[in-house]
Formats: sequence, structure tokens, C-alpha cells
Amino acid sequence: MYPDLIGEKKKMQAGNSSSEDQKFLVRRLQISDKSKGFIELLRQLTFCDSVSDNDFEDRFHEISSLGDHHVICVIEDETSEKIIATGSVFIENKFLRNCGKVGHIEDVVIDSNARGMQLGKKVIAFLTDHARSMGCYKVILDCSLENRAFYEKCGFKQKEIQMVKYFV
Amino acid sequence: MYPDLIGEKKKMQAGNSSSEDQKFLVRRLQISDKSKGFIELLRQLTFCDSVSDNDFEDRFHEISSLGDHHVICVIEDETSEKIIATGSVFIENKFLRNCGKVGHIEDVVIDSNARGMQLGKKVIAFLTDHARSMGCYKVILDCSLENRAFYEKCGFKQKEIQMVKYFV
Repeated sequence: MYPDLIGEKKKMQAGNSSSEDQKFLVRRLQISDKSKGFIELLRQLTFCDSVSDNDFEDRFHEISSLGDHHVICVIEDETSEKIIATGSVFIENKFLRNCGKVGHIEDVVIDSNARGMQLGKKVIAFLTDHARSMGCYKVILDCSLENRAFYEKCGFKQKEIQMVKYFV
Repeated sequence: MYPDLIGEKKKMQAGNSSSEDQKFLVRRLQISDKSKGFIELLRQLTFCDSVSDNDFEDRFHEISSLGDHHVICVIEDETSEKIIATGSVFIENKFLRNCGKVGHIEDVVIDSNARGMQLGKKVIAFLTDHARSMGCYKVILDCSLENRAFYEKCGFKQKEIQMVKYFV
């Protein structure tokens, strides 16, 4: 159903672009994306102080060390060279379901100035497709009630409730 | 609040044990636990065919390779030498929240013959404590509405909803 975007770069054009063609690149996070506004984008989701270059690189390498088991998708606006959408998926190895695997989608955020261009669907398609290609039997995510309709359009169904315990 | 059970074995006695003392060992999963009914226990949660020794060992080593980032807790009844409770937690490295970490609790199941002995709380305490010791700012899990009260007693609060997409 979804195009296979894994491991390749995919260019697309906005459906209703204005006179100037706007190109969006859907790809994995690169270490150079810190300078393209990746952290500022995450800040639209929850608080995140400025992250030092060292901390960013350390975390980037920690995540990268998991290879295909933890993938961060970004969409770059090639005109502005800014990251305008992101989301992540990590693959959990289980014993149940005959040693099955589950994809966990996290931290989906679309730049507030880039909404209405189906970028959220592109991010979810990229992450979902990756989970499927890794052999997961399902992919799950937690969201607010107000985002339920969006995920239903992406083929998800509500199932359980999320419980949380904060330490800080 | 919770005792530090990480990396050590902890023996406890059931609160209202009968004439014979029943001893429960809270510890990490060991490769020998397959012969102690670990897979049969998971089968009480969802379907799981019999897993071959090879498949079990492969998955055990895959999970173990993540070290403290993916920990499976079990409780062994030392009288019967059976695994009667389990739950897992894996640690997700994020960029947001200043390169924060989140613990994800999964696959909590208590043997149907061992309920009412606070074993679920022991499993959750073990996993929660591990997430905290790893520097997570929160720990999350998904559960059915009917299990909400149990997790509230463990200090969790309902926050979002879980969405799922099945591939098989």
C-alpha cells in the first residue's frame, strides 16, 4: 500500500504548490540535521533545551548503533533546507507471538507552518513501512484523543489506554 | 520508594503463606527459564506457539545484547521451580527532553494460579525501578481499561490512548 521508502531518498512535490515548486525529501535523520532545525522542531512537541553539538552527536551515535532497530525519519524542505517533519520507530524483540517483533512509533511532529500538506501521513507511512519490512506483526503508538482521527486515516485503530509514571 | 532490586536476587515470602513457606525469587530472565514454563506463562497473555530451543536462545541473545536497555523480569516460585510472573522494560533513547530516555513496560503477566499475592506489583516495581536507575524521565505502558486501577495503585496515571495497526 505504501511506497517502499526505506533506505532510499524520495522526492515529492506538494500537492497544491504555489508558483514555485516546493520539494520535500523524506529520509533518515543525518548528523548534519542539527543545523537544519531538527531540535527546534522537536521543541514544538515538548520542552527541549538547546542541545550541545557533543550531546547531539553522542545521542545520534547511540541511536545509530541500533541500526534498523531504531530509525528516525525526517522530511527536509529543500527550498529552505529546514527539517519540517519527523517521527521515529524502534523495533522491540519479543518472545510472545512466536518470538514476534513490534514497531513503536514515537515523537511525530510536523512544523506548525507546514501543516495541511500531508507530511504527517508521509512520516507515518515511512515508519510503518519500515516496521513491516523488519517483520513486525504490528506497529503501535500513543496519541492524544484529538489526534485519533488522523491516525485512523493512516489505518490505525484505537485499542488500549496509555499509563505513565513520571520520575521528574 | 521501591527497593533496589536491579542486578541482585531478592527473596520474598508471600504475605499470607500457608503452613509451608512459599519463596519467590524476583530476578532477570535466564536462558534456563524456558524449561521452567516461561513460554507457557506468556501464552496466558496472547497466543504463542511452542518455541524451539534454538529460536528461544537466538531471541534471548538478541535481547541480552542490549544489556540494561532491555530487561525481562521474572518471578520464580522456588518450591515448584516455575516462572509464575514476568514483565519487560526497554529503554528508548530520545533527542527531546534534552536527550531524555523513556522506559517502555511490556508483556506483564501473572500466572492465573498465583494472583492475589502482589506479584504484579513486584514485577512493576522491579521494572519501574530499573527505568529510573537508567535515568529515564518517565516510564509508560499500555493496558486495557480494566487494568487501569491496578496500575494506578502502582503510581501510574492515564494519559493518552494507544493506536495499533496489525500487519498479520
